[in-house]
Amino acid sequence: MKFTCPTSILSENISLAQKAVSIKSPFPVLTGILFVADEQNSTITLTATDLQMSIETSFPAKIINGGSVVLASKFLGDIIKKLPETELMFEYLPNEGKCVIKYGSSELSVATYRSEEFPKNEEVIDGESFYISGEEFSTFIKQVLFATGTDESRPVFTGVLFEIVGPELRLVASDTHRLAFRKTFIKREDTGKNINVIIPSRTLHEAVRIFGTVEEILIKISEGQVEFSGNGIKLTSRLIEGQFPNYQQVIPTAFKSNILVNKKYFLDSLERAALLPRDKDKTPVAKFYLEKENMIITSQSESGSIREELPISLEGEEFTVAFNTRYLIDVLKVLETEEIYLSLTGPLNPGVVKPVNDENYLCLVLPVRPS
Amino acid sequence: MKFTCPTSILSENISLAQKAVSIKSPFPVLTGILFVADEQNSTITLTATDLQMSIETSFPAKIINGGSVVLASKFLGDIIKKLPETELMFEYLPNEGKCVIKYGSSELSVATYRSEEFPKNEEVIDGESFYISGEEFSTFIKQVLFATGTDESRPVFTGVLFEIVGPELRLVASDTHRLAFRKTFIKREDTGKNINVIIPSRTLHEAVRIFGTVEEILIKISEGQVEFSGNGIKLTSRLIEGQFPNYQQVIPTAFKSNILVNKKYFLDSLERAALLPRDKDKTPVAKFYLEKENMIITSQSESGSIREELPISLEGEEFTVAFNTRYLIDVLKVLETEEIYLSLTGPLNPGVVKPVNDENYLCLVLPVRPS
Repeated sequence: MKFTCPTSILSENISLAQKAVSIKSPFPVLTGILFVADEQNSTITLTATDLQMSIETSFPAKIINGGSVVLASKFLGDIIKKLPETELMFEYLPNEGKCVIKYGSSELSVATYRSEEFPKNEEVIDGESFYISGEEFSTFIKQVLFATGTDESRPVFTGVLFEIVGPELRLVASDTHRLAFRKTFIKREDTGKNINVIIPSRTLHEAVRIFGTVEEILIKISEGQVEFSGNGIKLTSRLIEGQFPNYQQVIPTAFKSNILVNKKYFLDSLERAALLPRDKDKTPVAKFYLEKENMIITSQSESGSIREELPISLEGEEFTVAFNTRYLIDVLKVLETEEIYLSLTGPLNPGVVKPVNDENYLCLVLPVRPS
Repeated sequence: MKFTCPTSILSENISLAQKAVSIKSPFPVLTGILFVADEQNSTITLTATDLQMSIETSFPAKIINGGSVVLASKFLGDIIKKLPETELMFEYLPNEGKCVIKYGSSELSVATYRSEEFPKNEEVIDGESFYISGEEFSTFIKQVLFATGTDESRPVFTGVLFEIVGPELRLVASDTHRLAFRKTFIKREDTGKNINVIIPSRTLHEAVRIFGTVEEILIKISEGQVEFSGNGIKLTSRLIEGQFPNYQQVIPTAFKSNILVNKKYFLDSLERAALLPRDKDKTPVAKFYLEKENMIITSQSESGSIREELPISLEGEEFTVAFNTRYLIDVLKVLETEEIYLSLTGPLNPGVVKPVNDENYLCLVLPVRPS
């Protein structure tokens, strides 16, 4: 294998692939990136995988000899960012077990593994597929991703439910204390088949990073696997096994009180109140006193106390409820409307945050029992 | 105590003072900031100290009642950055043991300590004093500060020697593996008295941060104490006790070889070579092969190897020497000239880095015994 290409292009593609490299693995080959030089298509393809998730990215290059090899990626990833911008000459020397990279009158070499040891990527075929714009995908995923849990003993809550019924895509995430829900419509051939799968949150973080700005993402879902592709890059991931609980029955439909409030002012007040964690468990808890035209937010700890007064417009009952301010902050940060609704069902039952003029999103938050 | 002032001004001054607050202290009062409201001068003065170092900063305010109190600083420092830009109303309520801050129709309160418990700041009087511009001070201190040690069991190496003889100020720092030296001339009344003190590196880090952009810093040095002042801010610190070793005798005066090299190219090469730490002790070591017109830099580890070729102009002997690349990188980063001299005394004796056209600076670096 021998080729030349500009430093910046190789650097970009290594950065992309590197997120799927296994940092510590019992299989050393997984700490590397597979390079495949395709002479016919004048293309280099990089692949990295930790067996859960894999990233594949291609770019054009002047190929002198085709071939393939796995390069140890830690040193390669670090050094590539520090090389001068030039035309790099890349050559695999199988007899010496190393790959030489020449730049100007200097050169470096990187340790290699044999490409035969690298796991084959399973193709996602016979799956259901649909298209979505990178921008929409990014916005919608971020609106639910924050609500996923981290408890590995309950894996279904560590991912996002993708439920597809006809042209409707529903995204749902919950850590059992809160639940975020987004609905949208997608471009899809109607196969009459519904989809109900859970995609790991880590995969979605990477998918947003990689595809957030591409025009269109193709998403293919098959038994146990999902594949995102666009812009010459392919991200493949295993799905989370298990059944996501019936989320619809926990979303309240009738409310005691509906509050309309300016999002920015509300967020600012909550961020101040969040600086006073409840002493016993360090959770930042605030009390919310509802009045017709005002919401009084109070919080206190050993270090001090705060009392914020916020103009609102209330329909319904005046009462007092307590929330973990962090949960409200998380959802307000991913909403783009100027005003939001906070709908409450009483001091001990879930509240719901909704953007104004968008019936397709909501975030449910359980209140805290006031101490 | 009661006063009003803009959020931004209070915030700036709290940030300044906070660097001297003791994060963990057996004396809770030291985790606070002393506020003194001077009615006559319409001035608020903030003071913080951890008994080693203290910062005092003043700003104008509308004082309604004079007085003083110590405010617990953690919550105060965090919340002040999140308050809206407005005229804050600040009021100490001694009977309730708290200080209330009003902003708009909202308010918060902060826990307090009695100002009588706060340690008195020792005035630095009868000291020797001199002036230096903030910019010069910042440049020169950074040129030696990186060479200080961190081993608390050898305290004299954890600070910078300030040696003043007549109008000449000499700054020296060493961790015993390298030594940085800067000489400059200062504005000073000639008292005929020489000065030889060691200032803690932490104090100098803060001094650079606080005074780096002020026009002129007044530095007063007395028995055991140093005081920096300028722009309404005063930084006081204890000196490090002990005698700095005679640095002059370790600086070589005759060299086997003198190399003139472009600083940026040299630095880039070293940063690449530094990515290959020597496996046994993780120190990044490179070998330097001197030739008349080229320096070959090589480094290797399990992950790979590198061979850089750099144009130089050599006067003297051709030989090979090894250095900890990190030490050379540190000094090159604080030099601003396009070219530097690397002067060598042989493979086992110290090398010296000097900027071109500046006889008042040098950094000595011990070589590594090649393995």
